[in-house]
Amino acid sequence: MYQSIDFKEYELSNKSEEIVPIESLNYLSTNYESLDYEVIENELYRKEEQKKGYRYVVQKDFSRWMTFFWIGVIVAFIGIIIFISIEIGTNFKFNMIKKYFDNCTKKDCMVKPYLVALILNLIPSFIGSCLIVYVEPMAKGSGIPAVKCFLNGIKVPKLIRLKTLIVKVIGVITVALGGLWGGKEGPMIHAGAIVAAGISQGKSTTFNKDLGALNFFREDHEKRDFVSGGAAAGIAAAFGAPVGGLLFSLEEGASFWNQALTWRIFFGSMISMFTLHSVLSAYHGHPGDLTYKGLLNFGKFDDLSYHIFDIPIFVLMGIVGGLTGALFCHLNIQLFKFRKRYVNKDWKKVLEVLIVCSTTVTISFLLILFTSDCKKLGLDPINHPIQLLEGTVQSLFHDTPDVFNTTTIVYFGIFAYFITLWTYGVHFSGGVLIPGLCTGAAWGRLVGQTIFHFFPNTNIGIYSLIGAASQLGGITRMTISLTIILVEATGSITFGLPLMICLMTAKWVGDFFSESIYDTQIDLSGMPLLAWDPPPLSSSIYANNLMTHPVITFKTKESVENIVKTLKKYSHNGFPVVEYVQNNELDEGKTLCYLRGLILRSQLIVLLDNKVFDGPLTNYWDSVTMETFREDYPRYSSIEDIQLLQNDLKLIIDLSRFMNPSPYIVQHTMSLPRIFKLFRAMGLRHIVVVNDSNEVAGIVTRKDLARYKVIRHMGKISVTELKFSNKME
Amino acid sequence: MYQSIDFKEYELSNKSEEIVPIESLNYLSTNYESLDYEVIENELYRKEEQKKGYRYVVQKDFSRWMTFFWIGVIVAFIGIIIFISIEIGTNFKFNMIKKYFDNCTKKDCMVKPYLVALILNLIPSFIGSCLIVYVEPMAKGSGIPAVKCFLNGIKVPKLIRLKTLIVKVIGVITVALGGLWGGKEGPMIHAGAIVAAGISQGKSTTFNKDLGALNFFREDHEKRDFVSGGAAAGIAAAFGAPVGGLLFSLEEGASFWNQALTWRIFFGSMISMFTLHSVLSAYHGHPGDLTYKGLLNFGKFDDLSYHIFDIPIFVLMGIVGGLTGALFCHLNIQLFKFRKRYVNKDWKKVLEVLIVCSTTVTISFLLILFTSDCKKLGLDPINHPIQLLEGTVQSLFHDTPDVFNTTTIVYFGIFAYFITLWTYGVHFSGGVLIPGLCTGAAWGRLVGQTIFHFFPNTNIGIYSLIGAASQLGGITRMTISLTIILVEATGSITFGLPLMICLMTAKWVGDFFSESIYDTQIDLSGMPLLAWDPPPLSSSIYANNLMTHPVITFKTKESVENIVKTLKKYSHNGFPVVEYVQNNELDEGKTLCYLRGLILRSQLIVLLDNKVFDGPLTNYWDSVTMETFREDYPRYSSIEDIQLLQNDLKLIIDLSRFMNPSPYIVQHTMSLPRIFKLFRAMGLRHIVVVNDSNEVAGIVTRKDLARYKVIRHMGKISVTELKFSNKME
Repeated sequence: MYQSIDFKEYELSNKSEEIVPIESLNYLSTNYESLDYEVIENELYRKEEQKKGYRYVVQKDFSRWMTFFWIGVIVAFIGIIIFISIEIGTNFKFNMIKKYFDNCTKKDCMVKPYLVALILNLIPSFIGSCLIVYVEPMAKGSGIPAVKCFLNGIKVPKLIRLKTLIVKVIGVITVALGGLWGGKEGPMIHAGAIVAAGISQGKSTTFNKDLGALNFFREDHEKRDFVSGGAAAGIAAAFGAPVGGLLFSLEEGASFWNQALTWRIFFGSMISMFTLHSVLSAYHGHPGDLTYKGLLNFGKFDDLSYHIFDIPIFVLMGIVGGLTGALFCHLNIQLFKFRKRYVNKDWKKVLEVLIVCSTTVTISFLLILFTSDCKKLGLDPINHPIQLLEGTVQSLFHDTPDVFNTTTIVYFGIFAYFITLWTYGVHFSGGVLIPGLCTGAAWGRLVGQTIFHFFPNTNIGIYSLIGAASQLGGITRMTISLTIILVEATGSITFGLPLMICLMTAKWVGDFFSESIYDTQIDLSGMPLLAWDPPPLSSSIYANNLMTHPVITFKTKESVENIVKTLKKYSHNGFPVVEYVQNNELDEGKTLCYLRGLILRSQLIVLLDNKVFDGPLTNYWDSVTMETFREDYPRYSSIEDIQLLQNDLKLIIDLSRFMNPSPYIVQHTMSLPRIFKLFRAMGLRHIVVVNDSNEVAGIVTRKDLARYKVIRHMGKISVTELKFSNKME
Repeated sequence: MYQSIDFKEYELSNKSEEIVPIESLNYLSTNYESLDYEVIENELYRKEEQKKGYRYVVQKDFSRWMTFFWIGVIVAFIGIIIFISIEIGTNFKFNMIKKYFDNCTKKDCMVKPYLVALILNLIPSFIGSCLIVYVEPMAKGSGIPAVKCFLNGIKVPKLIRLKTLIVKVIGVITVALGGLWGGKEGPMIHAGAIVAAGISQGKSTTFNKDLGALNFFREDHEKRDFVSGGAAAGIAAAFGAPVGGLLFSLEEGASFWNQALTWRIFFGSMISMFTLHSVLSAYHGHPGDLTYKGLLNFGKFDDLSYHIFDIPIFVLMGIVGGLTGALFCHLNIQLFKFRKRYVNKDWKKVLEVLIVCSTTVTISFLLILFTSDCKKLGLDPINHPIQLLEGTVQSLFHDTPDVFNTTTIVYFGIFAYFITLWTYGVHFSGGVLIPGLCTGAAWGRLVGQTIFHFFPNTNIGIYSLIGAASQLGGITRMTISLTIILVEATGSITFGLPLMICLMTAKWVGDFFSESIYDTQIDLSGMPLLAWDPPPLSSSIYANNLMTHPVITFKTKESVENIVKTLKKYSHNGFPVVEYVQNNELDEGKTLCYLRGLILRSQLIVLLDNKVFDGPLTNYWDSVTMETFREDYPRYSSIEDIQLLQNDLKLIIDLSRFMNPSPYIVQHTMSLPRIFKLFRAMGLRHIVVVNDSNEVAGIVTRKDLARYKVIRHMGKISVTELKFSNKME
């Protein structure tokens, strides 16, 4: 009965892995693992369910609400820390510069304040970039693409560690103090995700601490739900937009819509916004006043009325936003390639940040020097000492028509576009949201001022707002969540339609030429992101063509030796458990290999680690529970680290007690769209393909589905098969 | 080869159908069919896909957007028709009454105006109730429960017919003119759903017209998507709340979240709101002004600030709302039972409406007579001639503290609660949303005035608003969508947290005692609604226990005679297609029955209707296309109506060309939660259960899953197995 396993050689079939440079497009990396949202309903699971009963259900539900409450509170406090640190730091900085300004009024002594400003900006930039480059590169940028991938079901290493959070928070503060063109809104999303993952799991890998609490949440699908909530809370804190946060989470993360989860996400977002508003109001001397708006504040639009004849103008502005956005994404790829080739050493990366910082400071000074009204453009340290970029956006939205002359805005717009482009992608911890809005607000205002020239009743602010939305929409292609974030930030529901029209136009025009900046980054990293829908016209691709085969399988009662050997030889994460029915009466004494379940590598590791072996002296059934498996989640030992005695190897593990006894299966004739929908809707990691007689024929995983990539270019749709590579940043 | 089918007798196994009175709870009706959201990827489908190519994909996508645009516009125009009709009618009515009032000033001659008012209210009430009772009973009430069931996947007969729409629209107008306590907001949701279904299908059963356009949308899943959009557009028009509309659709309808669909629903809602605002502004003499708010207008809250110490008060108010809401639902069931017993004839139903109407008018007059300030309670015809209930809500929200004395509000509150209760459920076309808000606003204002008595700085309006939300939340248990509808209607994001807190409390408290009013109605109707999540602790219920078996199957090549006989004998809607592999070498010459696909009753009917038979003289392969099947959607002939020649019966149909070749299958060991999730996420109608050797073992349908009902009562959770009955209203 306990015969040796049949080691069919695993062949990579048509999936040759190439070693390709990181900047190559159209390659999927094989280095990313998937998350697994399946609940394994094995005997242990049922035992626990029956033992704990309905009270356990209620208790778990209550813990979920409490966890979302604390996620909201802590995310808000991170926002508060960032805000207050920036406020104190910027005040100090500008006071220093002001002193030098005040001490010399002649034009030729601008040099001293310039140098002081330069140094005061370079120091935080240097600290921030060193942290990213040398301590935790995962904290780079906004983190939105990585969070998106995580919610999609990809295991992104180090994404949700406490260390990443600390570097990110300090990084965001240094970015603002360094005067770099990066927003703190994207990073707040990433920070929210980390907080949520940390709180819900009750343990920290960075500190190697396990509180032992909330361990019933130690499953991928529970963690994902909390991370969705954390990201939403981040947006709620950053923009004062809880509904926008909720919709962002759904837009990027959800697949199966769950009413209760949505309600909890919304609750967490509300708590986050409420906490931030209360504390910041109190900090600014108005305790109990809850009118303080989020980290970002667009100011109050007195009048957001528009006319029918404005609609074509908004559409045109959407087109401009889409075109410039697509150009932005295209140039970003070129810059990425350039950087991979020439900025390939750590010190060069830090140097680039310092160069960007110096350039920003220098041009800002030159703009102040040569144009009379640039102080108004937020470069004025007195009016907007706290939030440089946000202040600029506010000025562009609200100032009266006489404040800016056209030339200044043109110069400023060009500067904004290119400095945003250059800054996005250097090693710092900031996002593109606010710089994008700022750039768009500049050219939007230009449109407004031009119209004002002919129709003096024009409200310039709305054009500035539409420009901002169009530009950001063209770059990020965010649709519904961005509309609602902007609606919430401006507080006008009626203005939702124009915003939607320009964002939709910007998205369509942008998609005509390129992918969004986030998807571009995901493509470059080779992460196997699954789209919302299966590729069109793919119903003649069958499970047969998709699956990896032959499959490495285990028998229901398998020898420890075979398990260890297999795990050492193959890196697979899921193994079908089969039963061989040797029926000599069938043709040629054929052995049928019937599927009995699916066992995960992580489960096998835990079983080996805890020596859950069937032997004459063992009676493990009472000592092994669900807790045994939860303890090690999510980072399990490597098979190489497991020490076994020679005697152990001869024992048996009864896999039938631990495996998932009824994994979702598909027939070999099932088409790609149907498999895709099943995989996406159920958040699967493995689908077992069976043939007509229910024998295991193959396995389909995320990479097999993600390789069919839909390319929409110049109005044409096509489907490309991506190649596999080993690239990873 | 073409042997006769093996007619295994279909046994109802443990599912005895009882004949039970309609008011019995805990029975599932077997009279409702399910919708089927699966795409049948048979040979015809692939042929069409390959023929039409990517251009077809783009074209279909464009048509979707255009359809959503028109849904938005037409839903808005229905709102406009309702609004303007009510405005004209009410103006006429109140001018008449005013004339009689003005003509006699002494108190004792109130009789004449009273009688005039009574008659002017009774006439429209009579017309409205006759329409519902004699013309189209499906147009009764708000329609929200039925739309919810449709979106859940239940085929509700006559729900989305043009006739129902016309009766509904006229009904809503008569309700408002008859002074009945019913809102027009719920009906707008139903109207939106009908409009969406009608436009997207390009045909009308009522008029027997087929435009032949948009026939690629003639599938259940496409129709459902449009209906979601229509319901959302209805809310957007009714409340000026496009985001709330979107979230309502998702809360009630969605299972698999789809980004593109969400975006289109939002687009349709925006268009609907925008159209309604533009046209109504123009109608009121302000063309181009887009500040006009939806059908419902809460008025502008100047100040919605609140303090920390208000939160416990809001929670207490939420508790009151939950308690009174639960009582409301409980009494509603009693009333329902009473009506089924005593109001069982058509004329009695009309009579009840007339009695309700007379009572409403009489008490309103008495309130005016005996309390000095009741004119302010919206019963004043001069200030709020158009929207009686809405006007009352506005007064309760905004009027200064001195306007109402406490006694008046107490009387009014009691009146409001009971008249709402009585009116909801009579045969008229109005919803509970506004009456619920009005009742809550009354006792909320009472709370506010009490607090004002001690703290004269109190803003009474916010308590009134919280009371309104709590009451409605307690009755409907709507959570996230109601929060956002109220946030949008009041225009204050900051006040979202208090609203959420009181709605959440109201829901929790209400759920402690009863189900929501909508779910109560669904229970009473016996519709097999599937919840969001599978019942807890049910992982030891297996497919084996759930499925219906033995199954009626067809062979891949089946004789016409057998098909006709089977369809006449059994009412099933899906039949597994199998192949019998007679392997004499196996034990006892066992025949294995391998699954090859699934064929629907509707497909078989179309095949029989079009005589798609394999015979010596037929070559149908080119003439049968997807269009053949779409033409008859969604109402197919009955098997009894199909006329076949004796010769036809001897022919064969090759089912393998038309069947769904790879239906989703589950193993007989799969647990209820896993089957439930698959069923819900993929919108299935049938799941085929296979045994270990891939033989067809049974079929699981909606009713098999819906019968496990979770009862949450008094803080305890339990799972009840519902019985089957034949009840249907």
